Formats: sequence, C-alpha cells, structure tokens
Amino acid sequence: MELKAKPSKNIGIVGLGLIGGSLGLDLQKLGYTIYGITHREKTAQKARERKLAQIVSTNPSVLKNCSLIYIALPLEQILNPSSALINAIPRDAVVTDVGSVKVPILNTWNKLHPRFVASHPMTGTEESGVSAGQHNLFKNKPWVVTPNKETDQKALEIVHQISLSLGSQWISSEPQTHDEAVGLISHLPVLISAALLDTIRTEVKPSLYALAKSISSSGFADTSRVGGGNPDLGVSMAKFNKENIKRHLASYRHSLDLFEKCLHEEDWSELKKILVNTQEERQNFI
Amino acid sequence: MELKAKPSKNIGIVGLGLIGGSLGLDLQKLGYTIYGITHREKTAQKARERKLAQIVSTNPSVLKNCSLIYIALPLEQILNPSSALINAIPRDAVVTDVGSVKVPILNTWNKLHPRFVASHPMTGTEESGVSAGQHNLFKNKPWVVTPNKETDQKALEIVHQISLSLGSQWISSEPQTHDEAVGLISHLPVLISAALLDTIRTEVKPSLYALAKSISSSGFADTSRVGGGNPDLGVSMAKFNKENIKRHLASYRHSLDLFEKCLHEEDWSELKKILVNTQEERQNFI
Repeated sequence: MELKAKPSKNIGIVGLGLIGGSLGLDLQKLGYTIYGITHREKTAQKARERKLAQIVSTNPSVLKNCSLIYIALPLEQILNPSSALINAIPRDAVVTDVGSVKVPILNTWNKLHPRFVASHPMTGTEESGVSAGQHNLFKNKPWVVTPNKETDQKALEIVHQISLSLGSQWISSEPQTHDEAVGLISHLPVLISAALLDTIRTEVKPSLYALAKSISSSGFADTSRVGGGNPDLGVSMAKFNKENIKRHLASYRHSLDLFEKCLHEEDWSELKKILVNTQEERQNFI
Repeated sequence: MELKAKPSKNIGIVGLGLIGGSLGLDLQKLGYTIYGITHREKTAQKARERKLAQIVSTNPSVLKNCSLIYIALPLEQILNPSSALINAIPRDAVVTDVGSVKVPILNTWNKLHPRFVASHPMTGTEESGVSAGQHNLFKNKPWVVTPNKETDQKALEIVHQISLSLGSQWISSEPQTHDEAVGLISHLPVLISAALLDTIRTEVKPSLYALAKSISSSGFADTSRVGGGNPDLGVSMAKFNKENIKRHLASYRHSLDLFEKCLHEEDWSELKKILVNTQEERQNFI
C-alpha cells in the first residue's frame, strides 16, 4: 500500500526483545534502515548475529539519525527512561512505545517529548529476549493507540501507516478505556489463573496432590496457562494498572459469590441459568 | 497383549454418546460383540448408521446376553438408573460406569449390583451425543478406578484388562481422593473460568466492553474456555461433588485474598514471590 505519511528511511528501536526484534525484522523487509539499541554489548552482539537491525549499538546517541523511534522496553523501563536515552532523541522525531498500560505512560511521556504517540501492539508468544523476535508477529493483530489532547496528529498518522504496513489492525481508544480493557481481558485472567496455581500449590494432602497431578488435563492446563507466565510481567501490570485491576477483582469476587451462593443453597436452577449465560457470553465474545 | 481375565465376547454399553460411542467403536475393533442401548429410537437409528454397536436397541433386555456392561450415561442418570435397566442386568455380569464423581455412584451402585466397578475414563472432546463417538479416544488417557471394600476383585481385573487393551493408563485411587482431585483440577477451574465470563458479561460500560471484545486474545480465550462449556455438565459436577468444590473454592478465595492484599498494600516483592511460585508450580504440574 502507499504510505500517505512516510517517515524518513531511518527508524530507531530501543530494546530488541520479542516486540522490538520483531519490529526490526519486519521493518527492514519493508525497506527501512533500523538503528537498534540494547542495554548490554553481549545482547547487541546476538542482535547483530540475528540481523534484528542494520546498526546495533549500546549507545543511544545513534538515534540522532532517526525520525521515528519505537521504545520497545519493559513497562517499568518505559516509565523510567534513562536521561541518556531522552537526550539522544531528536526533538522532531516521532516517538512511540509498546507498553501495555497507557495512562501512566502518557503522563510520563507527554512531558518528556512533544511528538509522543502511545501504542500497544497486542501480540506475543511465550518467548522473550533477543532470541524471540520473529517475522510477521503483528500480522492481523490489534495495534491499539491511545491518543490524548496533546497527541501530534501527524505523528499519529505516521505510526498508523507503519502499523498498517506491518499488517496490524489499527484500533484507537481512550487511554483510560484501554487500561480498563486490558485489565479485564489480560491482567485479571493472569491473577485468577495464578490463584488457581496457588490453590494447588498449597494443597496439603500429598495423595490428593499426586492424583490431581497425574490426571490433570487440557482444561486445567488452559485455565492455569497465563498464571504460570513471567512473574515480572505480572508484577508490572499489577503495579501500573493497580486501580483498574482492583476494581475488576472486586467484580470477579462478586461473580464468584454467586457461584458459592448456588452451592451453599443448592440452587441448581440458578447455577444452570448462570452457566447458560457464561456459555453464551463466551460464544459471543471469542 | 494377552488378556488374563477376558469377558465373554458380548459387551453391553448403555448410552452411545461420546464415551459410550467411542467404547463401541474400539471394542468392536478388538473383536467384541457390542450391544448398545439408547433412550430413543431416533438415536438408535443414528447409532446403527454410525456402526457404534452391532446390536442397537432401546430395550435394555438385550443386556441379558452380556457379561460386561458399561453404564455410559450422564452423571445424573447413572445415579438414578431406571428399574428396567437394573432388572435387565444379569446378576453375574461385571458392571462399570464412566461418571466423574465416584463416592455417590458407589453409594448407589454397591447396593444395586454385586459386581460393580467404579470407573472414570478421563478423556473428552468438545463434542457430545451420538455423533461424537470416535476411535482411539482412550489412548494414553487416564482410566481411573476407585475400588472400595465391596469391590469384586475379579470384576476389577476384567475392567482393568479391557482398559489396557483400549490403550488407557490405569490409575487406582480411593473414591474420596478421586472426587477431591477432580474437584481441584476439573470442577474448580470450570467455576473460576465461568466467574471470569460472568465478570465480563456484567461489565456495565459499553465502550469498555466493546474494546475488550475487540482486543481479547489467546490468554483470555484459554482462561475462559472451560467456563464456557456445557451448563448441564457444570451443574451436575457442582451438585454431586458439592462438598469438595466448596472446600476448594474456600482455598481459592484465600489465594485470591493474597493477590488482593498485595495490590492494596502495594507489596510488589510479595506479589513477585507468589508469581515465581505459581510459575514454578505450573512447570512442575503440567
């Protein structure tokens, strides 16, 4: 497709993990020259071997050549960028990020840079780190942006066009609505799934634990999957999306109460009614 | 393999749904003559078309020819067998079942039949009904038996040998431990997953609901899968495994409390510790 608002050929990517590395691979294929930044020289070496960018450096100053920069760091680091990084970013460059919670990122970055666009490409694999990047990671996946009144419309359009050329589905949302939504469909599931694993872990009867382990099947594996994921990711979503998650957990607890009430009152027709609704909800939602 | 305790050639299967139909297909292949019983003539017709058994009838009296009988009905019907069925079973036949909760089944069937063996083949697909039966459903899947002091050892050995010839993994357990274990790894996940769907369903902000729906991905799909399953199955597990599920839900609530406490106290190091443990638990358990 023709790009209406094309950045110059040089694009910077800060962080070459799953998201940053995948961006590097796809954007090179689209004809851009990629300047990749890693924290450690050892990682830079591996990124060069994997050809995640044409230029890989541990020194952010190479970003001076770039008119579009992706901050593809973990959430905590997006929220606490080094001054070396801030100072290296040209004032007229478009800067965007990949963090999963947008309100705190906008609060930080609107002050740091005039042409910041808050992005959340929603994709992933179980992999992370410099070996995780892969081609076509963004294809047919949502690329959510959360502009606010300070967002530069031209900058937004540049991020838009590139995300389309990566094959993403562009979705624009209020920042607060975005954070509530990811709290509901991504962060809440992590906690309720982890609580299931914690329940198993603290089961005190050894014979019960052993049998449960030998007969657990796909239902348990699916329900516990996201709760067994990266603990640092779990902590950072809880920390930076705390208020939304607290609200969703309160709603979840209310739903759980309904099930417990049915069990205590042996109200099987009410339980049936709820389960008919949840079955229908999943068919609608997924 | 050579069967040490072989039943005669005639095997009865009461109910030709997913489990009963699959048993019919595999057991015919092993050389047995199968007498299948369905409730309605229309289902019998379909079962004949699908060749789920050589003889398909709605009249249980054909079971008089069988020395081994599988009761492959839904849990509620296993617990409330018709007198026509009970009267048709030869007193010296081995009878086994496929229900997912064993204590109430033993309480019922130990009184009804002298050679009853309580079984729980742990396998399944999303399908059900007369069109669901398939070959090799039991291969490499647990076949749990829960003998008690009234169990006839020869009858148990016959069920054992056939389950091995179906390719199942034979697991013997105390009935109470079995019911606690399925409560933990199968019934509890259904309720916590359904509660997630109920939380979504009762979300009151339309813009949040719409965005959540458009960005929900595999994490949400996996965590909500079993909660969106067959409502009748959910009700029957709750009804007949009530006490165990109540106990597990109480433990689960305690685990959820720990996560909420971390959020309210902003205790991120404690949250990290719990999530490191749940990550490890899943790696051990699955």
